[in-house]
This record gives sequence, structure tokens and C-alpha cells, in this order.
Amino acid sequence: MDNPSVNKPLNLGIAGLGTVGIGVLRLLQNNQKTITNRAGRPIRIHAVNAKNRHKNRNIDLTTFKWYEDPLDLATDPDIDVVVELIGGTNGAAYELVCEAIKNKKAVVTANKALIALHGNELAKMAASQNVPLLFEAAVAGGIPIIKTIKEALAADRLIEIGGILNGTCNYMLTTMTRTGRGFEDILKETQQLGYAEADPSTDIDGLDAAHKLAILASLGFGYTFNFKDIFVEGIRNISPHDIHYAQELGYTIKLVGMAQYHSENKLELRVHPALLPQSSPLARVNGVINAIRTKGEFSGYLMLEGAGAGEGPTATAVCADIIDIARGNTIPMWGTDWNELRPATLVPNSDFNKAYYIRLIVEDKPGVVADIATIFKENNVSLRSLLQHKNHMTTDSENTVPIVLVTHKNRESSLLKSLKAIYDLPAILEKPIIIRIEEP
Amino acid sequence: MDNPSVNKPLNLGIAGLGTVGIGVLRLLQNNQKTITNRAGRPIRIHAVNAKNRHKNRNIDLTTFKWYEDPLDLATDPDIDVVVELIGGTNGAAYELVCEAIKNKKAVVTANKALIALHGNELAKMAASQNVPLLFEAAVAGGIPIIKTIKEALAADRLIEIGGILNGTCNYMLTTMTRTGRGFEDILKETQQLGYAEADPSTDIDGLDAAHKLAILASLGFGYTFNFKDIFVEGIRNISPHDIHYAQELGYTIKLVGMAQYHSENKLELRVHPALLPQSSPLARVNGVINAIRTKGEFSGYLMLEGAGAGEGPTATAVCADIIDIARGNTIPMWGTDWNELRPATLVPNSDFNKAYYIRLIVEDKPGVVADIATIFKENNVSLRSLLQHKNHMTTDSENTVPIVLVTHKNRESSLLKSLKAIYDLPAILEKPIIIRIEEP
Repeated sequence: MDNPSVNKPLNLGIAGLGTVGIGVLRLLQNNQKTITNRAGRPIRIHAVNAKNRHKNRNIDLTTFKWYEDPLDLATDPDIDVVVELIGGTNGAAYELVCEAIKNKKAVVTANKALIALHGNELAKMAASQNVPLLFEAAVAGGIPIIKTIKEALAADRLIEIGGILNGTCNYMLTTMTRTGRGFEDILKETQQLGYAEADPSTDIDGLDAAHKLAILASLGFGYTFNFKDIFVEGIRNISPHDIHYAQELGYTIKLVGMAQYHSENKLELRVHPALLPQSSPLARVNGVINAIRTKGEFSGYLMLEGAGAGEGPTATAVCADIIDIARGNTIPMWGTDWNELRPATLVPNSDFNKAYYIRLIVEDKPGVVADIATIFKENNVSLRSLLQHKNHMTTDSENTVPIVLVTHKNRESSLLKSLKAIYDLPAILEKPIIIRIEEP
Repeated sequence: MDNPSVNKPLNLGIAGLGTVGIGVLRLLQNNQKTITNRAGRPIRIHAVNAKNRHKNRNIDLTTFKWYEDPLDLATDPDIDVVVELIGGTNGAAYELVCEAIKNKKAVVTANKALIALHGNELAKMAASQNVPLLFEAAVAGGIPIIKTIKEALAADRLIEIGGILNGTCNYMLTTMTRTGRGFEDILKETQQLGYAEADPSTDIDGLDAAHKLAILASLGFGYTFNFKDIFVEGIRNISPHDIHYAQELGYTIKLVGMAQYHSENKLELRVHPALLPQSSPLARVNGVINAIRTKGEFSGYLMLEGAGAGEGPTATAVCADIIDIARGNTIPMWGTDWNELRPATLVPNSDFNKAYYIRLIVEDKPGVVADIATIFKENNVSLRSLLQHKNHMTTDSENTVPIVLVTHKNRESSLLKSLKAIYDLPAILEKPIIIRIEEP
């Protein structure tokens, strides 16, 4: 328990003074005494860096050294920990983290894209330089899922990790469900509220959730894989009609990110909208909240639910990493030596085995249902239910009806093959809508 | 990052081979390779102890040294960590932990009563001997709430910690809600299922939840207090009628444990049945599941939900502590130096300020409601609603009716004074039922 660094202050260099950076400054100032007690030594901000020095941030920066170039933080001999809050996959953030590690500085980052895409390379670098690289804030802001998987569940083997990983999508789908309003309409409102970016694609097309899922899977299962092989589908095609029909069937539509251990070297990682049974724990997670559920061989189910973003929660996560470093945390980046991670291939979506919700818009004439059922039968796709609805979707075409189907678990390739054949039927008027059903 | 103990095995002495002890043995055997990787060194069981050596445990114990006396684990020079899984507030568990610390051994315990009642004394001993004392499994089995508060939320100041802390009570109340059956009936069934002990009082009278709450409050707020000052009320008086009326009003009845920071040196700690709005996150936690929600100044709300007991989840928590010790975890027991903990007084229930559900059984005659309302008015108790129900509670007395009242937030002393006066009214036939309402 002897720690030579007790009472020696830990000096930080912080790059990036956006929402999270300012939050870290505020938290370190506000709770200075508590943090010193819990870290066992004072934590001091030595230097900061941001794009614009003169922007009004409502916080006094004059007591910190200012660097115009973030890379200077990596070489300042008075800095013990570089805190990277710049963001972005490559460029300044990547260079800063590499330089900091090369200069034997500990690194704390909130950058999910960086870790998801360069995690293994950085883990190797950090291990060779014997410095910690921590990234609690990179996944789901205020939810300590990294520490939970890396430390609390360290003895167990996880077989499933997943949940609601994107607050923007969850807010939008929650609001669409509550109001019955359409996607574009809700997107505009979400942007006005500041929950979605001006260019919302990273969130609504699922990339943000995929970054988080990749990190969770590497950490939880101990594998490396090709990020581009993760199946990713966003929420742009979710309509109020499907939300409505899903509700009638006892489901809620959410964007989920799911990682499943299949077998030695084979994982399933996917981000997509899903129908969740209304009674399932994730179905009840509403608004901008994130939730992550793990399933382990010994630990069973564990769910963490909280703020996935925001100044205070994310700053708390960044500062937890800093306190860990102050206390002498020496856990490798992936919870195990980087060279213990094995390569895995990811299951392609054609091999998914799930139940599906399908909506067809058909011409209202005899024999259509029989034709559809026959095609499914020929492809060995087993149906759980088929409901022909009254048309409340369109008013301009009285001769069309929506048909909503729910399948049992089927191989996705068989399902897609059936739907291709069904779409070729003259009575099928629109491209079929397919949404996966996520059941325990 | 240099760790002289890397690769040197960590040797355990395990006392107590009940459900959790056997789970720890199984987990350490099953996941040996994973655990070695994550701990950075092998973890070996050197010796074990239990009451009965010859009991069939379906596990091979012959490779471990056997001690008849648990105290021998504390003095065996080959043991690095004593794992106390005996249980009980005093006696063997207490003596073993004290002796282990005196002999400069790290301690891992799953014993909530021991930590709740002797935590400060043990923290002082462990600090003076410079050994870690970890107790993740002592609160809510597989939920890593100790690590979350101590490490993930270390930078923040918590203002509220609470939740569903007892799986037995939650299972019983969930089943009563689902079936409409009575307390005694459900208790018998719960005992048959093994979710309640033959003597169920520790669980159903709230003591178990109070132990957990005391630990969470000391850890989360940084205070010591008199355990006996915690307000504790169990679930014996919860009837299907109240569950039914609560549901009609939009509430679910749960046993909650709540700790709130009031002001410097003043905390509110209480364990009692409560009406939770059906939309609140804790209301949806059903069955034997536990859930704990923290509220911090910066971190906001965070909720952890999972198995509060059981072989696998609890063993995972015990092994997480062991791995932390293997990696060199040096965090003080309460997350801060034991002498940083300040004494706090606990708010007596007369000073609680809550909304209340009240059920009265009254003689069905004119003027009763006016008499009741007048008494509340005289005591400045403001009512939110008053509903006179049809009598479906008793069949033998057609002239009685239940009245269900919901108050706004009031001082509990005023409420109790009113109810005393109301009970003195000749038309009030039974002792009033009072259940606190837990609203955000």
C-alpha cells in the first residue's frame, strides 16, 4: 500500500474547452477539497488549450498556462496527465494522445471515435510506455460502464452487452412515440433543443452508437475486429405508423446497440432500430437517457441507466479517471494486456437469427395474402402473426391496405430473399419495411 | 506504473463455504485464465475454512489447506488476502477480520452487518495497518454500487442515494401486487422458494435494507452516524387493500431505503414501504431484483439495477475485490481517510417532510368526513385528495367504509398528531394506516 506519490500534486494539461472541458474545470474547482481527499493528493490544472483563447466561457482561465498548440501539453515536463477533450477520430486529438503517451504522460480522453478506431494501437503504445490511458467518458457520459466491465465484472465472462447508446435517437423515438409526429418534424425540434447537431447524421445514422458498441465489445469480450464490419442502420426510416403498429403488438421502437458473444472468435455486433417488448427493461428507458445491460455467465444481468451526455455527468466521468490515475490505477487500457486481445470476425447480417416486424403496403384485392404466405413458406420463414389493417396511413389511395407481419426467429438471409420475391408481386406497392425484434 | 507484485501469485484464505463461498471457488476455477489476465497475476486459493468439513458441496476441496478455526487464516504467513464469508455482526466474522488486519492481511468481506455496525472501527484499523478492506458484495450482491460511489462518482458530491435494497421484500410486494394475495400467504410461498429465511424478520422488518443504506450513506456522503437512529419500518402491515388503492391512485408500493443529504452534519436515512409513482424508475423494478439510484450535484441521476443476491452475482463482486487487491488497489475503505468522516445526526421521523397515503376505516354516517377534514385543517395538514371507497374490504360489517386520503407534503409530526386526534373520533373503527409517498 506504500505509494510514493501520496501528497505530491497531480498536474493536468487539458486540451479542449467545450462543454465537457468547462465541466471538468468547474468540477475540479467546486469540489477541490473532496477530490483531494478522495484522490489522496491535490489535483491541479497546470495548462489548458482550446481553439479560441478569447471566447467568453464564464470561467477564469488566467491562473492556468495557455498553449496555442495542444501538442505542447504533451511535452510540458510539469504535466503528469493529458486530458484530451478535443474530439474527432484523427487530427489534433489523435496526435495529442500519441505524443502524450510517447512522452510518458498518462492520458484521459472522452473521445469515443478515437478509442473505437485506434484503441488497439493506442493500448499497445500505452503499454509499451507503461502509462495509463483511461476513457470512461467516451461511452455513455455519466454511466460508469467502462469501470464496471473492466473492474466490477473483471472475474466474469460476458456473453452480451447492449442497450440504448444514443441519447439523440432515444429522445427522438420517445417523442415520436408520445406525440405520433413524424421523423423530420421531431428532428427539427430536437435540433432546436440542442439534443441534435446541425448535421445530425453521426447520431441518427447510428455511427455514434457503433463507436460506443465497438469499445464495449472489445472491453467486455476481449477481442479486436474490423469496425466497418459492425452492422449499422439508423432511424431515418422509422415512421409514426410503425411506432403505432408496434405499440398495438406490445412493443416499443428504440435504437439499440447489441454485442453478443457467439463462439471463439465470432461476435455479433449490430446497431439498428428494434421492437422491444414493452415489459423489457430497455423499453422503459425514455428521453435522452442511456442504458447499458450486461449479461455474464456468473454475474447474470446488470443494467446501468443515466445521463449519456451533458456537462456535469461527463465531467464526473473524466474526473473519476483523473482520480484513478492520482491513486495509482495501473489497469491496462482493455482491462488485460493488449496482446491478450484476439481477432474476431463479426457475423454478417445475413446470418442474424431474429424475429422480424414487416410492414407491406398492398393493393386490396383477393389472393394477396395467400401469395405472400406462400413465398414465406417456400423460403422456410415461419410467421407468428399477420394482420391486415384498415388504411389510416394514406387518404389518397383507398384501394391500398397495410399488412403487418411478425415472424418467428428466422435467418435474415431467408427473410430478405422472401421480401425480395414479395416486392416483385404486382400487388406490393411500396418497398417493405423491416424492423428487427429484440427479445431476450 | 511499476508494480513489484506483478506475476507473484495472490494467495487467498476463504472462511465460509455457503452459497457465496462456493460461488467464489467455482468462479476462480472456471475463469482462471481470464482472471489471471485481468488481475495481472495468478490468484490462488491457499486455505479454506467452514463449520462442517464433511458436508457435500459438490466441489473438490482437497487441493486447499483446511483450517478448523477461521482465525488460523489470519495468521497463516502464506495468505495474502482473507475472504470473510461467514456472516454475522459479531463473533467469528468480526474476530477474523480484526485478526487479519492486525496481521497485515488484505480483507474482502460480503458481510453487510459487520460493515454497517463496525465499519468505522475497521476502517481505522485497516488504515493504521495500511491494508485494503473491500466489501463490494456487502451491498446488493452483483450490483457494483460500492465501486461506483467510491470511484466512478469520487469527484462528485452526492445528495441522495436510495432504492430497492431488499430482494425478499421486493419479491413479496411484487407478488402481492400481481396476485392480490395477502402478506402471510405470500410470505409462506417466498420461504418455500428460498427467497425468505425461516425467520424472515431481518428482511421483512427492514433491518437488512438498513444495513445496506447505512453503508451507502457513509460512503456517499462521508459521515458517521448512529445506526440505531435510522428510521426503519418493515412490510408486515402492507395489505392487498392498500396495494389496490395505491394502484388506483397511480402508485406502486415498494420497500425503499433512502438517504438524503440535508445540510452540514444532518442526514435523513429511512427504510419503509412507500408509494412510488408508477412512472418512476424504481417502481418498475420487480421481483428479487435490487436497484440503487444516486443523485449527485454534477453527475445527476444514475441507476444500477441487478441481482441483489445469488451465488454467481455475489461471487463476481467478491472476486472483483480480490482482483482489485491483486492489481494494487489502495483506496481507503470509505473512499477517503477514515478520519475525514464527520459525525452527522439523523433527522427523526417527526421532522420528515413528505406526502402521505392514509387509509381509515370509518362508520358510514354523515359528518365523518367533515370531522376528519377539520382535524387536518387544525393541524395545518394539507390534503391532495380524499376518496370514500365502496367497502370491498370486509363483508361482515356493512356499515363501514374505507376512506383513502393523500396529503401534500407535510411535516410528519403534524400528520401523526392529526391522526391521533382522528383515531379518537368515535366513527374511526381501526387504527389508521399510513404509508409515505416517495416522489422526486
